Amino acid sequence: MSATTTGTPLSAVSADAAVDAAAAAARRVTVALLRAGGAAPGLEEITARLEEVAERLEAAAPPLDERQAQLWEGGGAHRHDPVTGTENAIAPPLVLHGQEDGSVEGTVTLDLPYQGPPGHVHGGVSALLLDHTLGVANGWAGTSGMTAELTLRYHRPTPLFEPLVVTGRQVFVEGRKIRTEGAITAGGRLCVSAEGLFIDKHLPRPGRGATTG
Amino acid sequence: MSATTTGTPLSAVSADAAVDAAAAAARRVTVALLRAGGAAPGLEEITARLEEVAERLEAAAPPLDERQAQLWEGGGAHRHDPVTGTENAIAPPLVLHGQEDGSVEGTVTLDLPYQGPPGHVHGGVSALLLDHTLGVANGWAGTSGMTAELTLRYHRPTPLFEPLVVTGRQVFVEGRKIRTEGAITAGGRLCVSAEGLFIDKHLPRPGRGATTG
Repeated sequence: MSATTTGTPLSAVSADAAVDAAAAAARRVTVALLRAGGAAPGLEEITARLEEVAERLEAAAPPLDERQAQLWEGGGAHRHDPVTGTENAIAPPLVLHGQEDGSVEGTVTLDLPYQGPPGHVHGGVSALLLDHTLGVANGWAGTSGMTAELTLRYHRPTPLFEPLVVTGRQVFVEGRKIRTEGAITAGGRLCVSAEGLFIDKHLPRPGRGATTG
Repeated sequence: MSATTTGTPLSAVSADAAVDAAAAAARRVTVALLRAGGAAPGLEEITARLEEVAERLEAAAPPLDERQAQLWEGGGAHRHDPVTGTENAIAPPLVLHGQEDGSVEGTVTLDLPYQGPPGHVHGGVSALLLDHTLGVANGWAGTSGMTAELTLRYHRPTPLFEPLVVTGRQVFVEGRKIRTEGAITAGGRLCVSAEGLFIDKHLPRPGRGATTG
């Protein structure tokens, strides 16, 4: 379990650096708002500035169905998901790498937006990271699908502010059933483990038919 | 199952309207960034404005331990969590209400930041909403704790852009073990169900000792 993850980066091919930079800045605002709270002077002006930015973006947004078609173009390059999506300010983002042994692994450090118990990661955030990582592990293994059942076991509290290693590995495929496991560790100690049952089935992408396999 | 949830609002007593407004504006930026994408003109300038806001907030932030003590002051009024926290731009936010029958319920409509499969909610986001709702249900029932095990079953895809009803209900308490269930429905149809095992144990709050019960 390495502190710095190596392997094949499982991310989009055609990055839009300008959108990534804007999302990173929005992410920074989200963290800073929680770190500053009511102590920040000029919050009304800050709100007005953020609203002005939102209005400019909203005015430039295409109709939703057109935007959805754009978002789902290309071969599984999901730059917008809430876990690894560099264009999504909600995503930490986690960067996953495919390993030679068939597993995937990423390292991420979480701040106040992801807090559950004091100083620790929200249990539902761990579930979010693991559900996504198991899905990416299925993709890396070659057969992916939709989550049918997911079980999380919380072995010890997962700390904020220090590197977490998130791993996923496809265990077996039997017909359309896929079994996948994963874990979050901190300093080499197991914090959360996950078992998922996935079904080899996919919702249609906008402008395309339903796919299986 | 009502489209508009009634009951006792389970939210913080002493709201900071200025922080809430800033977080709501940051949330609006996050959605608008995903809705506009690379089509938005002047993204570099937008990024610069967001970074300027972040810098102002960061300069005003107290030391982290001091801020954590502030965040955890008061009687369980968690205004900062990633699900219901009005001060957290990552939270949709879900507003939960305590019902007379002992359950909790809330209604929320999710947009692009929470997308998993095309047009649908990310399975891990459903897990996040349910883990939190089960925890709040425990609090409403009178005995809360930390998640030990959580199982999610995905019955049908959960839609974006339409009202979701999220419910939770404590089933029983046996010693320090707490069993809690919950569900997400859309238009009265079950999308995701959850079963959680919680342990009546709490991490210490900053500046306070560990508590149980």
